[in-house]
This record gives sequence, C-alpha cells and structure tokens, in this order.
Amino acid sequence: MSAWVLPDHIADVLPSEARHIEELRRGLLDTARSYGYELVMPPLLEHLESLLTGTGEAMDLQTFKLVDQLSGRMLGLRADTTQQVARIDAHLLNRRGVTRLCYCGPVLHTRPDRPHATREPLQFGAEIYGHAGLEADIEAVQLALACLRVAQVAQVSVDLADVRIVRALLAGVPVDLGRLNQVHAALAAKDASELAGLTRDFPQASREGLAALLQLYGDAQVLDEARRVLKPAPAIAEALADLQVIADHIDGARVSFDLADLRGYAYYSGTRFTMYTAGASDALVRGGRYDEVGAAFGRNRPAAGFSLDLKQLVSVVAPRPLKAAIRAPWSRNGEAGAAIAALRAQGETVVCMLTEHGSEVDEFHCDRELVLADGRWQVRPL
Amino acid sequence: MSAWVLPDHIADVLPSEARHIEELRRGLLDTARSYGYELVMPPLLEHLESLLTGTGEAMDLQTFKLVDQLSGRMLGLRADTTQQVARIDAHLLNRRGVTRLCYCGPVLHTRPDRPHATREPLQFGAEIYGHAGLEADIEAVQLALACLRVAQVAQVSVDLADVRIVRALLAGVPVDLGRLNQVHAALAAKDASELAGLTRDFPQASREGLAALLQLYGDAQVLDEARRVLKPAPAIAEALADLQVIADHIDGARVSFDLADLRGYAYYSGTRFTMYTAGASDALVRGGRYDEVGAAFGRNRPAAGFSLDLKQLVSVVAPRPLKAAIRAPWSRNGEAGAAIAALRAQGETVVCMLTEHGSEVDEFHCDRELVLADGRWQVRPL
Repeated sequence: MSAWVLPDHIADVLPSEARHIEELRRGLLDTARSYGYELVMPPLLEHLESLLTGTGEAMDLQTFKLVDQLSGRMLGLRADTTQQVARIDAHLLNRRGVTRLCYCGPVLHTRPDRPHATREPLQFGAEIYGHAGLEADIEAVQLALACLRVAQVAQVSVDLADVRIVRALLAGVPVDLGRLNQVHAALAAKDASELAGLTRDFPQASREGLAALLQLYGDAQVLDEARRVLKPAPAIAEALADLQVIADHIDGARVSFDLADLRGYAYYSGTRFTMYTAGASDALVRGGRYDEVGAAFGRNRPAAGFSLDLKQLVSVVAPRPLKAAIRAPWSRNGEAGAAIAALRAQGETVVCMLTEHGSEVDEFHCDRELVLADGRWQVRPL
Repeated sequence: MSAWVLPDHIADVLPSEARHIEELRRGLLDTARSYGYELVMPPLLEHLESLLTGTGEAMDLQTFKLVDQLSGRMLGLRADTTQQVARIDAHLLNRRGVTRLCYCGPVLHTRPDRPHATREPLQFGAEIYGHAGLEADIEAVQLALACLRVAQVAQVSVDLADVRIVRALLAGVPVDLGRLNQVHAALAAKDASELAGLTRDFPQASREGLAALLQLYGDAQVLDEARRVLKPAPAIAEALADLQVIADHIDGARVSFDLADLRGYAYYSGTRFTMYTAGASDALVRGGRYDEVGAAFGRNRPAAGFSLDLKQLVSVVAPRPLKAAIRAPWSRNGEAGAAIAALRAQGETVVCMLTEHGSEVDEFHCDRELVLADGRWQVRPL
C-alpha cells in the first residue's frame, strides 16, 4: 500500500476549503464571544473513565482507546467535547452563577456517524451552565441560529422535540435498558408495527401515547394535537408549553416539531433542537438541554447548548472569494523589502517570485505586481 | 481516582489563556497568508507507515499507536505535521513550481519533549517547497521572525547551524548508526571527552574537525574561525557562506552560531535555525532546510520551513486585555433584542443577565449596561 493512502473516512483538507473552514471558525467563535461565551480548549486525550463516565457512557463504541506509557492506564481520544466542557464547568471553574463556554477543535470517531461522514469532525459548540429556566434553552437556539447566519447557511429549518414527553409516557413502566433502547429506535424510525410489538405489555396509556407520537410531527398544530391525544401529565404539559415558547422566539427559520425524535447523544434531559438547511437530510446542528451531564464531576448543574461539525458546515455553504494577491520580485534590495512589508501590514498578500520559478495558478491569484518604476517601488495591475 | 484528573502532561486550556492562544493563532495564520502561504489541514490520524516512513522514522517512539477497527490496520496519531504537509505537496498538489503551505493544529506525544512540556502541543508551521536556492531558507527565517513580532515576543535571538558541516567532517568515515547517534549526542552536549573517545579511530581531519566544532559557537567571528580551523571541503565552505548570507538578512534579532548544534528532528539536510526569547532556555521556533522529507511520497522536492508550539508561545508573551463587555437584561421585548443584536454586530460582547443570577467576575468584565431610559434602549457606563 502506498504511503499517501489515508484511512477510510479520513481526509486532508486542501487550501481553498481549509481557508473557508478557518473563516467559518473565526465567524462562529466571534459570534459566541459577542454573546459572552468564553473559549476553552480541553485536551484531545483523557483517562478513558473521565470521557465515558455518567452521560459519556453512550460514546464508548465511538471512542478510540490507547494505553498511556507514562502511567500504564487506558486513555481515550475524545469523540465529543460536551462531557469535557461539563468537567471544566463543574471542577475547574466551579462558579456559582451562570457560566457560558464555547470550544472548537477536532474529535475522533472509531466509525463514521453517517455513511459519508468524516471520522475526524471539527466540532464547534457552546454551552450555558447554571440556569434551569427556559431563557437558557432559548439563548442556545438563538446563538445556534446566529452562527448559521454568520456562516451564510441558506433556508434554515429548526426541528423541536423534548425527551420529557417519552420519559413521561414511560413513567412507572417496568422496562429494562435493552427494551428501552429498542423502543427509542422504533420511535426514531417511526416503525409502528415494531413499536406495537415492543409495547404490547405496557399499560394502555403508555402504549397509546407512544403510538400517537409517531404521528406527532409537522408544524405548530402538532402541539395542539399532542395536548389532545397525550395523557394530561404535568411533565408533558410543561414540555409542550416550553416548545411553544421556544418556537415563538425563533426568527428567520422554518419551525417544525417531531415529538418522537430521540436521535443524537443520550445526554439530553429536556428540550431538543436540530437544525437543517434546505436540500440536506443530515442535521447541521444538534442541541438542547442536558442537565445531568456534569453529575459525574460532582456538580449536577443545569446545562443547555449545541454543537456542529465545521467540516460538514463548509460543505453546504458557498465558498467566499479570496482577495487577490500581489506578485513581487525576490530582492535583497532594502527598499523593495520595505515596500513589501508595508503592503503586508495593510493586509495584502505579497508572493515573492523565487528565481527560475514561474507563477502557478493556486490559491493566491495575483492580479497586481510590485515593480520598480521611475525610481520607486509601486504596485501595478497585471 | 477522580473523574476530573487528567493524564500527566495533559491540561485544559482555560478561558483567558484560550482566548490569547486563539488571538496568536489568527495573527500567525494571517502573517503566513500575507507571505502567500496556503493553509492545509492534514488529519490527526494516519496509517502508521505513512507517518513513520522515510524521515518520519525518528518520530516512532513519540507516536501514539492504535488499531483501526474499520480496516484492522495500525494507525498513528501525528507527533509532527511536517511529514504530512510534505505528503500533501508531493502527492495531492503535485505542482511543478514553488508551493508555500502552512498549518495549525494539535499534535500528540507519548512522552513530553522537555521536563515541563505538554504532550499535546498546538503546532503552527510553514513550509516552502520546490526551491533549492538560499532564498527559501531566508524566507523561512524571515517569516518565522515576522510571526514572533506579531506575537509580540520580546528580545528574539536566532541561533544558526548547518548539518552539512558535521556530514562533511564524517564523509568517508565508516561509522554505524549507533555510533553516529552517540557522536551527535556528544556534539549536542558539548562533551569533549566523550567525543574524543567515540572518534578515537576516526581519520585525523575528522577527529580534529569534530573536536573543533565544540568551540565554534558565538557571534559572527565563529564563521571566520571555522574557515581557519576546519578542513577546506567545498560542502563546509558552502555551508559557512550560506550561514553568512542568512545572518545578513536577519533584522531586529540577535544572531549567533553553534556549529555543533544538531538538536531537533532528524530530517534536516542543510541550514538550521532556532529562535529564543530572552530568559527562556527552550527554543520557541525550530526550522531550516529538509530536502529529503518528501522522498517517501515519491517526490524529493527541495523544502525549507519551521514550526512552533502555540501553547509554549503563549507562555512567554504578555496577555492582551479584552474589550470590556455590556450587560443587558434578558428580555422578550423586541426592541431590546434589536438593540442587543446591533451592538453584537458592531463587535461588542453583550451578556444577557438570566433571572436570579448575579454577574460574576469572569473573562468578560462588564463596564457598561443596556438600559431602557427615556423610552429607548441605550448603553450607559456602569
């Protein structure tokens, strides 16, 4: 096998796409900063039990493992950053009030999440800790929408859901973890016959409620329909009311509901949102409330937030043109050097031509050149 | 062991340092772009033999290894990015003319490079391929200096060396790899008695030349002294002339020479430079010429460049203050929302206060607040 062949679902990012990703990265981090989110950089490697503790357990099969030769202990490469940021909030910052944190860095997956997904997403995310009220859920949705606007994603739609509804329908039903996962899978797949079989022995209210969820997707009428057909449990009423309030706070995006949707990571505890762009079936953004994520680190703080993959994001937005560059001779002349330095300080790209090598078409298209004319160095169109 | 304990030599980067690293990162990438260097993002994971092929072999002990469950093959986590960028130049871009590439991303080391070093450096680097002339060596030095200026590193000094001198002194001497590594180590440690023992059986010219190198460090007089005491081999004369030319092109930094210095990665083939800031004994930047690095990928192109660790760089420069933020009430009022959005679009950080939670001292110090007065939302000093 040739030395340049990469593993499946692993790829180099070449110049024009890399530049675009870098521009998006800055736009997203600046947007998060404008909302008061502080940047943190957790490590790629941690002790395996830190990554997989508590709500992180669901990432076990996605996590690469290796042995630390310094300690002999098992390490994991992070497959998701949320767990790490919860650790930072709970243990390192340990503030009493609201803490807003954001991050941007690679994560690694043993297997691709979707058929054509990379195993090395570049994950950007933002989290708000310490506020149980709906304001935090709403801020997470609004910041995610602001990020997609900055990235110039067209025709955004937001899908809303709430895990409390399924939980309430299953409350008091004795069901083991294996069966529970099957029920979740049948709901996600909207597989009515599978769901009927799995819930055959459930109390009538649970069985009928779960079956009804399969039809509860679509526009705002879904919430009215849910109030009519689902059992009048306080948790369900609260979830439906919260979804209504969140929907009312969304501007500039189409809103829909899918009350059976349970996809994504296992750590959600309340409202959930998923964002799409027109024409793409894969979600760009996943977020919501996950109050239990810090429990393993000794502080079970309220938490809401979202994450996205910049490598996926860059594939759905149009590239932006790069400002054309200036060609300059390679020169030991001090005046030429000063002219080049001044142009670079103004934000120009100045490419020095090395002896014997012509210019090639590449990322930096030169539309001007620095020439010595009338005794001084000046920029002229090419 | 508690879930929040990190492995040795692995650390979280917390808000104010993370922000500073992000600012430095942007400054360095923008500087490289102003010189015409195109950004690439090679993957963290590759087939082990791609990472360790050819000149990459020296990174073997520093490279974390794991098994790819998709293919059953061994993968490595990159311990250095240079090898990957050479692969991109040789195989993916495959241009005939000069190619300038830069990168910025984490690398992982099984053991720390130095007693207090991180095992997860954030490596930034730039490489110029396809030009054998000294102009490329000089551009690498000048770009590295420009990067340190942008990072506001004070009192930079540059140490110059050239591996061709030791190679020429050993030319024709039958010496196995083990002995060669011992000779290199004795030269690096300036251990005269160890060197004398190792070279006891060498021809007189080699033995005396290597011994003389131990004294050949210091200012520009070193080059004159070297011309006097070393054998008059063409390769040595050329190396000394090249070092003189590079030194003449360095502005704004103290220049010294250390002709016995062979530290750093094994892939250098010509001139080498190391940059320091006053008061720190660890090199901030290592670079030079490494013409053989692309050979394993089928194109042995001339190459020069450098790299540095942003986590180390941030520790030697003063933090920059952050623009103070604006405090705003959390409000469902549309006019307040519009005022907040407008401030954020102007680059301000606006932190919405969530009910019941006071403001805490954190990264975003609020020196102003958004208030409703005289019927409109306005910003007032706090």
